[in-house]
Amino acid sequence: MTRNIKLTIEYDGSNFAGWQIQAKGFRTVQDEITKVLRKIFKTKINLLGSGRTDSGVHALGQVAHFKTESTMPVDTIKRALNGNLPDEISILKAEEVPLKFHAQFSAKEKTYRYTILNRDGRCSLQRKFCLLYPYKLNLPLMRQEAKALVGRHDFKSFQAKDLSKKKFMRTVRTIKKLSIQKKGDYIYIDVTANGFLYKMVRNIVGTLLEIGCEKLPKGSIKKILSKKNRMYAGYTAKPWGLTLLEVKY
Amino acid sequence: MTRNIKLTIEYDGSNFAGWQIQAKGFRTVQDEITKVLRKIFKTKINLLGSGRTDSGVHALGQVAHFKTESTMPVDTIKRALNGNLPDEISILKAEEVPLKFHAQFSAKEKTYRYTILNRDGRCSLQRKFCLLYPYKLNLPLMRQEAKALVGRHDFKSFQAKDLSKKKFMRTVRTIKKLSIQKKGDYIYIDVTANGFLYKMVRNIVGTLLEIGCEKLPKGSIKKILSKKNRMYAGYTAKPWGLTLLEVKY
Repeated sequence: MTRNIKLTIEYDGSNFAGWQIQAKGFRTVQDEITKVLRKIFKTKINLLGSGRTDSGVHALGQVAHFKTESTMPVDTIKRALNGNLPDEISILKAEEVPLKFHAQFSAKEKTYRYTILNRDGRCSLQRKFCLLYPYKLNLPLMRQEAKALVGRHDFKSFQAKDLSKKKFMRTVRTIKKLSIQKKGDYIYIDVTANGFLYKMVRNIVGTLLEIGCEKLPKGSIKKILSKKNRMYAGYTAKPWGLTLLEVKY
Repeated sequence: MTRNIKLTIEYDGSNFAGWQIQAKGFRTVQDEITKVLRKIFKTKINLLGSGRTDSGVHALGQVAHFKTESTMPVDTIKRALNGNLPDEISILKAEEVPLKFHAQFSAKEKTYRYTILNRDGRCSLQRKFCLLYPYKLNLPLMRQEAKALVGRHDFKSFQAKDLSKKKFMRTVRTIKKLSIQKKGDYIYIDVTANGFLYKMVRNIVGTLLEIGCEKLPKGSIKKILSKKNRMYAGYTAKPWGLTLLEVKY
């Protein structure tokens, strides 16, 4: 009998070329887990994630699913995976789910966190998990501007350059929540949406940072959204500050 | 004219054999900084830290000092150091201080933080910065017991085994503050004292964990302190959960 297994996965993306299997020679999270699944079940397994994460991006709650004919208990699957995976990848949960569950297509919303260390002086301890930003930031202005991103919008201006030339691509998404919190020298930008375009969070964060250091004026976000053109938004914030926190179904 | 320069240093201790210079072939923080100072000032420099940290232990605020005849401004010293050090070591501050300042002997108190990830399931993202502890912990009991550690005591029972045989070693220290905080799945044990014996924090944490999982009964700390013998205390918690937060002068 076919069973559908859902995995919840944490990973340190620092030394991976992202989630998605690529050409040979690229080390990816999907590839590492797929290889171990093949070893455990002694057959080809097709592992599907909720979506890609870029090279260097981390996850505390990536979700993936695979189908199997095996009757192996889910706790055994979890233990077998953790026992064979590199310590940069941890399986937090393995659950049996209805056959119709699909990690990508069943997803209702995702939350990403972007972590900024806002201090003058470089960073050693958390250097792989945050962006060091040494300039003063106007947080009230950033929060005020960020409000214009919340809701249903065409985020074409915040999509990666290389994709925006493709016609007919649906670029409308709904950001349900966007918060900017400061704790000590750290600033956390959390974004929840029904889905994200390629590099959307990193382009939003790069733009908010340009607003925060007052390189871009008040009203910029509204203007950028209306242009539907990547060239109006700010730069793409570095991947190592980004973590996929949660996927909801 | 001789100047005395105080450095405040952050480091990721994961790939170091601790702070203190050791035999050849061991990579240490003190050695890395000393080599760069020698390169900058083109002369031998004697860098003295507030104290050792063990292999794998981190620092957000280690302090060290060195004397120099150079007139190089402190900001230039800081920049030159950061420009030449591996990214695991960051100089947060360089200040000129009175000649009598000594990083070790002038220290009034130090604060260490021990970070525990208390969840069932392994840890990838912060694996080098916390101890994974998968069992349920009785935090109220740990906090109650920890009170007996605060104050002026002979901490001989919490000193590393290999040192406790040396006679006449002063093992009396004063713990000024000890807090146990829970934030999500993380537990932070912060200890402030006028000084610490070798492995004292890690032995205290190991003992508190054995109390938390109720392997050691109520009243254990008082009993262990009174025995003045390392064999009565709990195990030595792993180094990677430990961070030197601050040294006060």
